[in-house]
Amino acid sequence: MSTGSRPLALPPNVSHDAFSRFISACEEIIDRRNIHIVASKEELADGSYYEPPRTHDPHHVVEQDYFVASAVMNPRSVSEVQGLVQLANRYRIPLWPTSIGRNSGYGGAAPRMRGSVVIDLGKHMNQVLEVNVDAAYAVVEPGVTFAGLYEYLVKSGLSDKLWIDVPDIGGGSVMGNTLERGVGYTPYGDHWMMHCGMEVILPSGELLRTGMGALPQNPRTSAHPIHEEAGNKCWQLFPYGFGPYNDGLFSQSNLGIVTKIGMWLMPNPGGFQAYQISLPRDEDLHQAVDIIRPLRLQMIIQNVPTLRHILLDAAMLGSKTDYTPDTEKPLNEGELDAIAKKLNLGRWNFYGALYGPEAIRNVLWSQIKQAFSSIKGVQFFFPEDVKGNHLLHIRAKTLQGIPTFDELRWVDWLPNGAHLFFSPISKISGDDAMLQYKVTKKRCVEAGLDFMGAFAIGMREMHHIVCIAFNRGDPESKRKAHWLIKTLIADCAEHGWGEYRTHLALMDQIAETYNWNHNALMRFNETVKNALDPNGILAPGKNGVWPASYDRRLYKL
Amino acid sequence: MSTGSRPLALPPNVSHDAFSRFISACEEIIDRRNIHIVASKEELADGSYYEPPRTHDPHHVVEQDYFVASAVMNPRSVSEVQGLVQLANRYRIPLWPTSIGRNSGYGGAAPRMRGSVVIDLGKHMNQVLEVNVDAAYAVVEPGVTFAGLYEYLVKSGLSDKLWIDVPDIGGGSVMGNTLERGVGYTPYGDHWMMHCGMEVILPSGELLRTGMGALPQNPRTSAHPIHEEAGNKCWQLFPYGFGPYNDGLFSQSNLGIVTKIGMWLMPNPGGFQAYQISLPRDEDLHQAVDIIRPLRLQMIIQNVPTLRHILLDAAMLGSKTDYTPDTEKPLNEGELDAIAKKLNLGRWNFYGALYGPEAIRNVLWSQIKQAFSSIKGVQFFFPEDVKGNHLLHIRAKTLQGIPTFDELRWVDWLPNGAHLFFSPISKISGDDAMLQYKVTKKRCVEAGLDFMGAFAIGMREMHHIVCIAFNRGDPESKRKAHWLIKTLIADCAEHGWGEYRTHLALMDQIAETYNWNHNALMRFNETVKNALDPNGILAPGKNGVWPASYDRRLYKL
Repeated sequence: MSTGSRPLALPPNVSHDAFSRFISACEEIIDRRNIHIVASKEELADGSYYEPPRTHDPHHVVEQDYFVASAVMNPRSVSEVQGLVQLANRYRIPLWPTSIGRNSGYGGAAPRMRGSVVIDLGKHMNQVLEVNVDAAYAVVEPGVTFAGLYEYLVKSGLSDKLWIDVPDIGGGSVMGNTLERGVGYTPYGDHWMMHCGMEVILPSGELLRTGMGALPQNPRTSAHPIHEEAGNKCWQLFPYGFGPYNDGLFSQSNLGIVTKIGMWLMPNPGGFQAYQISLPRDEDLHQAVDIIRPLRLQMIIQNVPTLRHILLDAAMLGSKTDYTPDTEKPLNEGELDAIAKKLNLGRWNFYGALYGPEAIRNVLWSQIKQAFSSIKGVQFFFPEDVKGNHLLHIRAKTLQGIPTFDELRWVDWLPNGAHLFFSPISKISGDDAMLQYKVTKKRCVEAGLDFMGAFAIGMREMHHIVCIAFNRGDPESKRKAHWLIKTLIADCAEHGWGEYRTHLALMDQIAETYNWNHNALMRFNETVKNALDPNGILAPGKNGVWPASYDRRLYKL
Repeated sequence: MSTGSRPLALPPNVSHDAFSRFISACEEIIDRRNIHIVASKEELADGSYYEPPRTHDPHHVVEQDYFVASAVMNPRSVSEVQGLVQLANRYRIPLWPTSIGRNSGYGGAAPRMRGSVVIDLGKHMNQVLEVNVDAAYAVVEPGVTFAGLYEYLVKSGLSDKLWIDVPDIGGGSVMGNTLERGVGYTPYGDHWMMHCGMEVILPSGELLRTGMGALPQNPRTSAHPIHEEAGNKCWQLFPYGFGPYNDGLFSQSNLGIVTKIGMWLMPNPGGFQAYQISLPRDEDLHQAVDIIRPLRLQMIIQNVPTLRHILLDAAMLGSKTDYTPDTEKPLNEGELDAIAKKLNLGRWNFYGALYGPEAIRNVLWSQIKQAFSSIKGVQFFFPEDVKGNHLLHIRAKTLQGIPTFDELRWVDWLPNGAHLFFSPISKISGDDAMLQYKVTKKRCVEAGLDFMGAFAIGMREMHHIVCIAFNRGDPESKRKAHWLIKTLIADCAEHGWGEYRTHLALMDQIAETYNWNHNALMRFNETVKNALDPNGILAPGKNGVWPASYDRRLYKL
């Protein structure tokens, strides 16, 4: 596709002429082959998880060409990105940086503002810059995936010393996931908490290093691009630096383009044991969550475990038609019981792990087992207890930071499988879990969709992830999914629950629920945004924050 | 003192008349008895730790009346503080908020900008607003001290369920310490990491709640001022909220006045054992630090332990004259050996603890003991092994979150005892620890002062705290202490080391060392500062960040 083509979508108030001049200017900075104009609807291929499009959201819950880029650029270096940012300021072109494009269920690589230029950082900027064994950290570029980092450790002979933490699917960008405050399942499951030190291109094009990275390297001895003998030694060791701790500003935000990030890795704990606990009845959720809370708070449960609804596990093993001939309506309680029985699973299944030497694991396991034993009919499994294609074998990998791709399969629950995540935060309390389950399931059923969900248990809260699987080939199914998530956001706000992250289409709605004291937070975010990005070029609308140069009302969905 | 008095110090470019009009306006908002004009040098009493002045820094390394307030105000409520902030904007008066005034060694309650109005929040706003046992957190106002929070838990019968984390001295503000990113010594030692949710008055006077606090309480059912049945339930459970995570902006900064903060508390771990490990030789520091690193990274050492130089322990038990008749010069190696021998301590002493049921503690202790046993002559102690006035008995309290005041005593090493902390961050590496020790000790000796220091071992770094004890009654001693710390900052910057926190007098110098890429960080901080505080009324100069309305060059020290 020639860089002179007319794009399918242009940013607001940008003429084709102005856009063409911008593209020509970009060609002075990056190789023409690294600029791709999105010229027609026909070229929008939804692809697969392994080949994600950078042009649009493949899980399009609205029109496929709504969240669409005008162009996709693949810079090769930090200075190339800086150059593009400077040009965007000059030509007032909105940019949408993305690491890999696998922000699956939340919009992929697609921009919030139709016609933005997607800066696909990960294609060329994909190096593991450093792995430090003594201090157990890595420094990565945007394009390093969980699978890539794991492979790097294996190839370097370090995977026995250092473990990474991975989300359910291993193909995402380590940096992208961390900036979106995603979670994994080892004791290092809170990725944001475990990052240390970033390099950021500000909307002005200037380069910032946060924390101890703001201490200069000693120019007399500088050789290694990141650390050296007599230079800054603590960038990845101590997150906070001196003065205001700014890192949080660059998470879930449009205030900078992160180009390097430090991640703490977990030293091999000296022993590991995955387990599954099956809870036979739907209502066991209540008791289980109340059992989990004190165990997790006391670090008897050392990691981020998950409590998964039967259908999420069932969907891993087959699509809806494998379980019922009638795919038009949600499964009923009897059908769910039958599936659980057939798969030898509980209505809820709890997946966790023990870390450390055997003597420690034994103490922890006896406490966990004892606590759960008060649930009638509960069953305990280690991987050796279950045969064949059982999720526990997959979780046993995830729980020790080995990336897998198997859990992609639930997306194909319906034909033309696509998905959206609805992700409210919940107290770790039986009452709250049951209420949130009831409220969300009720609406799923109203939408004619099955409830599939899981609770990931953090330090003092649960990320409740409701997986909305829909048929992207069927406008009615898309409409239902969109109605469902909008309704769930409103319902949960009524109950005092908010979401931790969301799809492009829901960013404004959710941001509007965080409206305490006449939208004090949004006004604060806008003040900071306008100060750092006066031309409003960086990711307008990201997480509901619009620069002054955009009228948010015009872009409502 | 009448509120009509002429203050000893006025802010720059503020006439006495204008100041008087400001004070009159303040009298419309807060009770006249809660306004105190600092009228003369004579009223500046250095007080004691227990009765800290709010007017100036009692550990004055420069002139006693240099870091001095024009007035001290004691608001009774959030809305009173908001009112004062609005007036400060109208009259362009710099405010310096303080929680308790015990930021000892870093400037106490004193303002960076001479003549600022100190807003002494803690006097009246000192309530524990909530303690939640199930989710293990507390919400506190600025005036709640560590000792106060502990006492609250004891009185409520909760101290057996929930532990707090305390710094060496228990009298500081929980909030103040956390905002300055102070540390304690339990597994919850990183106070900033363990905070969750804040309420902040912005420089505009507007009120912001961060994280999940931005979700409104349900007005239909609102009764409890903070949480209620159907309102926001996760403010203290999940720190990040939705969109940019802004909390860090309010730490070590002048971007807001924090009025409420949530702190995670540690559930009683079900067992505890403090220990001390004595290292006989000065150079054992090297080997000890290399032993500690993997143990800490693997959480075999579960908490923030400290490796303390002999003199810090010796100073706890007596002043310098108790050890030597010649107080004019630093103790030599032979004298240090003799003191260690006399006190039955090592040249370095390592204080830590084990947490959890006995079976777990035994596994951890055997690993720790085995690792340290490679140091020749190492000795291991539990509290029952040492008699009398031994620091281990005090640390055994601190390490389980029981506040103590005993460690104040080292400040009296010299007559008219005062102190400054020099706090560089170091790698957890024997080489780095030895080099940092050598570099800092050399300058202490050059200044004619004794090296007293400790390394607090965090997740992947050490806070090296060099305690500079000086005689505040002797201008020469003050001059030496000031020379020493300025020189140490410069020396450490040369080695690529930066400080995590500092005294008022050193804020600019340290901020200037974080100057990577032509001061990108400072320019970023200034941009944010000027956007949020266009009149520059909040804590000008705090941590080196000056608003546009001040010329930093005029206030150099």
